[in-house]
Amino acid sequence: MHTKIITSPDNPKFKAALKLLSSRGRHQRDQIAIFGVRETLRAIAAGAQIDEIFICPEIVKPELLDSAETQLAKLGKPIWELPTNLFSRLAYGDRVDGLLAVAARPNSDLSRIVLIDRPLVIVLESVEKPGNIGAVARSADAIGAAALVLASPICDLFHPNCIRASLACIFSLQTAVADSETVKLWLLQNKLLIVAADPGAKTLYTTVDLRNSGAIVLGNEARGLSTIWSGHEIQSVRLPMRGLADSLNVSVTAAVLMFEAVRQRTG
Amino acid sequence: MHTKIITSPDNPKFKAALKLLSSRGRHQRDQIAIFGVRETLRAIAAGAQIDEIFICPEIVKPELLDSAETQLAKLGKPIWELPTNLFSRLAYGDRVDGLLAVAARPNSDLSRIVLIDRPLVIVLESVEKPGNIGAVARSADAIGAAALVLASPICDLFHPNCIRASLACIFSLQTAVADSETVKLWLLQNKLLIVAADPGAKTLYTTVDLRNSGAIVLGNEARGLSTIWSGHEIQSVRLPMRGLADSLNVSVTAAVLMFEAVRQRTG
Repeated sequence: MHTKIITSPDNPKFKAALKLLSSRGRHQRDQIAIFGVRETLRAIAAGAQIDEIFICPEIVKPELLDSAETQLAKLGKPIWELPTNLFSRLAYGDRVDGLLAVAARPNSDLSRIVLIDRPLVIVLESVEKPGNIGAVARSADAIGAAALVLASPICDLFHPNCIRASLACIFSLQTAVADSETVKLWLLQNKLLIVAADPGAKTLYTTVDLRNSGAIVLGNEARGLSTIWSGHEIQSVRLPMRGLADSLNVSVTAAVLMFEAVRQRTG
Repeated sequence: MHTKIITSPDNPKFKAALKLLSSRGRHQRDQIAIFGVRETLRAIAAGAQIDEIFICPEIVKPELLDSAETQLAKLGKPIWELPTNLFSRLAYGDRVDGLLAVAARPNSDLSRIVLIDRPLVIVLESVEKPGNIGAVARSADAIGAAALVLASPICDLFHPNCIRASLACIFSLQTAVADSETVKLWLLQNKLLIVAADPGAKTLYTTVDLRNSGAIVLGNEARGLSTIWSGHEIQSVRLPMRGLADSLNVSVTAAVLMFEAVRQRTG
């Protein structure tokens, strides 16, 4: 693998990569940061446009890198080697395995989403924790959801922890981002049954017919859904709750609703 | 509220509390640490035996503490005030809200579990991440599971992150800890149908009758279940998987199985 070595913290490539640690920097540069060999390979397989790669030879597991070498070389993109002291300034969290790929930010326009064959779309409105978004993406991938849409997001869809928690499934899913009004309009235009998770709903989720084209909409961890997800166009549902706590983790609620749809569709 | 002030890091009460930050220290002292006003009140409501309380007046939210004051005073246990520099040495993670209760470690004997009325027991074998155990506890509470049992654990059931992720539901659930062989024997003796989550199983989870007394058994995040959870006494089930990733988060799998049992029982 043909690599070049960066040793100075003043290297412009290194400084540009540092900017990608913040959501603001990622949006300004229209790029994202993918940490990890496996995650990068999955992103490439799903069509992510890699711009360059940073490797820390002292950290990366040789067997992982060996298995990836051909695919990384085939990209024909710059590969930079960094010493540990520089790479650790790029590393996000503690589970990074010595490789960081910089990629073009995937297009997040709603209009690019293709809906076929009784699609099930998952919508997360203003979900706060990247780990929750990633976990929902992983389940959405598992059930073959048509798309994951962030409505009025307060967390970057391509936050490194979203990518990690999704096991990079976020790249193979169709994804989009828009404000809640736009998302709702788009769902209605596409004639999707809008099923909103609401702990105060009267209807149990198991009594709703989820076999046809639909969208499952879930809200913020603390506040739930905004009021635009109520009214006659919306089918609000709740999960049965018999315990002390009055709500479930959003990724748990999402998974229970998604797998109920799968059960109805295959049952 | 009658409090005493600790100012020295050499105070024996403070030094004893510091020991509770490690699993080893908690087991040696047969005590646990509960962080947070809400969590502590839930634990008290569920019957936890509080030994003493540490408060950091500079961190704790006055309105939270005010609402808790009567219940804490009623305990008749020592309440210690700590300055921020000492309290932050006790604080676990970044979401601590200025109160730490030291409690007796709840009894974790399997023999204490009471099973009535078509119980559904949740078993986690060697699950590694406290956040996952806590998330499962939260769902187990939600569906009214009979008990949460850790089999051959590698993470302390009362790890602060378990308590936090469970929203302290872990105190109101019946819980127990034992090695896997013992847990399996106990499940069989109690005539529970053992349903093991296994991505390689032939049977879809929705085709198994979960209406009678049963146990849902889930394994380690990376390795899955050990071989003792296979064979003619075990009903292995899988979730349908149509995506890139070959597994789901353990707390997601647990929730999907639990809510399917609820659906069958109420449907």
